[in-house]
Amino acid sequence: MNEFDLIEKYFNWQTNNPDFLGIGDDCALISIPEQHKLATSVDTLIEGVHFPSNTSAADVAHKALAVNLSDLAAMGATPLYFTLALTLPNIDESWLEGFSSSLKTLSEKYNLFLLGGDTTKGHLSITINVTGTLPINQALLRSGANVDDIIFVSSTLGDAALAWQKIQRDKTPGAKILKKFNTPEPQVLLGKKLLGVANSCIDISDGLEQDLSHILNRSKLGARIDISDIPLSDEVLMYVENTKDWCLPLAGGDDYELCFTVPKDNIDQLELITKELDIKLTKIGVITKNQDLEIVGLNKTCTSYQHF
Amino acid sequence: MNEFDLIEKYFNWQTNNPDFLGIGDDCALISIPEQHKLATSVDTLIEGVHFPSNTSAADVAHKALAVNLSDLAAMGATPLYFTLALTLPNIDESWLEGFSSSLKTLSEKYNLFLLGGDTTKGHLSITINVTGTLPINQALLRSGANVDDIIFVSSTLGDAALAWQKIQRDKTPGAKILKKFNTPEPQVLLGKKLLGVANSCIDISDGLEQDLSHILNRSKLGARIDISDIPLSDEVLMYVENTKDWCLPLAGGDDYELCFTVPKDNIDQLELITKELDIKLTKIGVITKNQDLEIVGLNKTCTSYQHF
Repeated sequence: MNEFDLIEKYFNWQTNNPDFLGIGDDCALISIPEQHKLATSVDTLIEGVHFPSNTSAADVAHKALAVNLSDLAAMGATPLYFTLALTLPNIDESWLEGFSSSLKTLSEKYNLFLLGGDTTKGHLSITINVTGTLPINQALLRSGANVDDIIFVSSTLGDAALAWQKIQRDKTPGAKILKKFNTPEPQVLLGKKLLGVANSCIDISDGLEQDLSHILNRSKLGARIDISDIPLSDEVLMYVENTKDWCLPLAGGDDYELCFTVPKDNIDQLELITKELDIKLTKIGVITKNQDLEIVGLNKTCTSYQHF
Repeated sequence: MNEFDLIEKYFNWQTNNPDFLGIGDDCALISIPEQHKLATSVDTLIEGVHFPSNTSAADVAHKALAVNLSDLAAMGATPLYFTLALTLPNIDESWLEGFSSSLKTLSEKYNLFLLGGDTTKGHLSITINVTGTLPINQALLRSGANVDDIIFVSSTLGDAALAWQKIQRDKTPGAKILKKFNTPEPQVLLGKKLLGVANSCIDISDGLEQDLSHILNRSKLGARIDISDIPLSDEVLMYVENTKDWCLPLAGGDDYELCFTVPKDNIDQLELITKELDIKLTKIGVITKNQDLEIVGLNKTCTSYQHF
């Protein structure tokens, strides 16, 4: 099977859409809605670094696209299209079948078009560049936090990190935290709803402590959060109670939840969003004037995820 | 050095531009000129597959961006921005220095912004996704060729393939063909000028025979070209005379020149472009009604570049 057959068979599922020219020319062409700007983000997942070697093709595809969609979510952007650079050790049709089918499912869920890509031979690696749109004068930036904003996070933290730790130690993670590790659900709908409601937002991919610090640095402000407010699943709660290792939920990374700050006046709107999306949002602290991140209840420094 | 320091030191050279929000948030934000659509393309280069292991960091950066710009050129698009997914075996500051500096030089030449990226640890690999703009009703497509269009190619063919062959056989390629292999110059200016002049266009990355066939398939037409018309550099001409191996310039790949078809009525305009850009364009054949590619003077079948 050559590259062209491979693309035709597994990656050319787009129906004809007059706004796009997809796979099959030197470039893909895309029309952008008027009065909108683009938001774009790229992430690479490498076998053995970002996912274990025995991860199913379907989970690899889901995670590769989800971590990118999570970046769009953090800006409040609406997904539009993505490109895929896929490096494969060999042509394994059953692997490609699972990968392609899962990628299609997640992209259709968010009305996202696969517009082009490149396939190369080498160690298994997936680079996705996802692009979305935003109304021309709106975006959730890291730099927008104000003093006295309330800090929220979505869902629970530390699930993926605990699953990964258990896998590395040859233990079996529970189904719920394994699902968060293998097939995280990007908070795209939440991000869109937060436009005009939240002052700042980031996705928690490197761990809450590091990612909240990015908001604080960009906004030139500080924050006080309390570890007893951090939302935890039962399995992570049990782990933390046994080990006192608060660094796992605070700095474990791979959460793909949103951390955002909301002015007091908008809390009512946020409650409506919570109900409408049927989503768990937890208040974990407040933005302060001094430029430190104070974590009440934590008496050590955590080591955040390092890319090198 | 962590990922953030690395990005700040080597990849955050953008000056402030009100149309962009670059590195430093979850996504980059981009404003698109009105009445324009986007053209986007992605290519991955892997050490040992697409470039030899001893290639300089500067040449790797140039080639990784140039092969992507070549795809924009083939659509007639104006470069706007790119994202970079860089996988490195380790942090080698002198390598990063050379890579970053060369990438900056080529991107500034075409007014192209580096808007974001990802750095990961692994076998050296570079994925660039480049995006450009096109007036809303214009593009050079593979599907636009008409019967009796004249077929042209830019510059000379086979130089990169001969350089690569010599490197693999421990011979030293001449400086000119080595330059075409290591630092190809994308035909961005030519592509833009061909809008409204050429009926169809493709970049010759997989070899003329295969890439011209893509135009023919998409346009549902044929072509007759003559090997004696293929433009060759002195070194490739000598090689072909010695070996009779016409498959090297016809199917060697890695040329990054443009192959395009022009209706007879536009030949005068093309001559003006040739003078204005001071560029070598060679007529190699004509588009025909029957759906075959006839190569006069070639009495064998060439094996084109296969990605797997």
